Amino acid sequence: MVTESSVEKFLDDLSSGHPTPGGGSAAAIMGAMGAALVSMVCNVTLGKKGYEGVEAEMRAILHESEKVRRRLTEMVAEDIAAFDSILAAYKMPKASDGEKVVRAAAIQAGLRRATEVPLDCAHACAEVIALSRRASEHGYLNVISDGGVGVLAGFTGLRSAALNVYINAPALKDRVFADRAAADLEKLVAHCAAETEAVYEIVRDKLG
Amino acid sequence: MVTESSVEKFLDDLSSGHPTPGGGSAAAIMGAMGAALVSMVCNVTLGKKGYEGVEAEMRAILHESEKVRRRLTEMVAEDIAAFDSILAAYKMPKASDGEKVVRAAAIQAGLRRATEVPLDCAHACAEVIALSRRASEHGYLNVISDGGVGVLAGFTGLRSAALNVYINAPALKDRVFADRAAADLEKLVAHCAAETEAVYEIVRDKLG
Repeated sequence: MVTESSVEKFLDDLSSGHPTPGGGSAAAIMGAMGAALVSMVCNVTLGKKGYEGVEAEMRAILHESEKVRRRLTEMVAEDIAAFDSILAAYKMPKASDGEKVVRAAAIQAGLRRATEVPLDCAHACAEVIALSRRASEHGYLNVISDGGVGVLAGFTGLRSAALNVYINAPALKDRVFADRAAADLEKLVAHCAAETEAVYEIVRDKLG
Repeated sequence: MVTESSVEKFLDDLSSGHPTPGGGSAAAIMGAMGAALVSMVCNVTLGKKGYEGVEAEMRAILHESEKVRRRLTEMVAEDIAAFDSILAAYKMPKASDGEKVVRAAAIQAGLRRATEVPLDCAHACAEVIALSRRASEHGYLNVISDGGVGVLAGFTGLRSAALNVYINAPALKDRVFADRAAADLEKLVAHCAAETEAVYEIVRDKLG
């Protein structure tokens, strides 16, 4: 599993001429970093004097942020598997008409997966953004900049995942699915862009 | 070194209640991911048929992106060291007047370092953004979304680093340095925000 390799090794692999890991994996990791920073704000706040009143809220956020962090971490491998399946499909034999049909279907299945995974990633990143707002509104003041980095990382994970939908969806033959995915994503990006800037302003105001 | 631990271990450490690694380390890693993705676009483009004319440009970008990636990866440890030095300074004895003076100076030295490191990180991320433009303008079309993720990661690294300057600079007694740092950063963020959206549009247009 790529997330079991060191950060340095992951960066080396990302920079290489091999197509995976690529931007889709980076998107999931940025989302996971955002979720981890939300968890950090909660963990630091829990037990702090003067923050007894938000303890239940911090535990509730933490439960969600750790769940979405695990999902996003898993998506790194899912993104690589989806992309590798497209590469494998393109290498399938295409001598006979029968082979051509099988190969085209395999390519379409891979493309669909390479669209579904970043769509899931985008939705998970939207959760990170929503959790960042709650953590930044009520979390310990001295780590509030970490909540700000969390929301920025979540939104960039989302926009990055969206780019992976935009590059894969046009080649999908199932236009109903592809068009619905694109429309769904546009709404999500617009909503989360506004929400991210709102959370960023909350953090900025608290920093004085 | 924290970047020698696995991606999963890094995310665990980020989420914990321990103050380091925190948002500053996440900022440097996002910048490094951006640089790695620029390198990926160059590495994939080199040797591709139809891209012979941009080979020298790709080699020049790659040389710079790998250099800035190394710098940003080193900054993860530098950010942790700076922050840990502030924590250590706060734990210094303060019984006598002499001890108080020594402790206050140590806190100021730590805060200054914890402002300089994210400032350096922000400038390195600005380089990533500039390199993303060149890679996205001339790179292989099939990996152009990776160039887009690269510029988004670079800009979020920059904004995240800026939040770390905003949280540390107000406590600095050297107001000349602190005010210059803040003014420098505001200009950089404004310039890079516009530049990032411009590069994102280049990528989006190429995706159709």
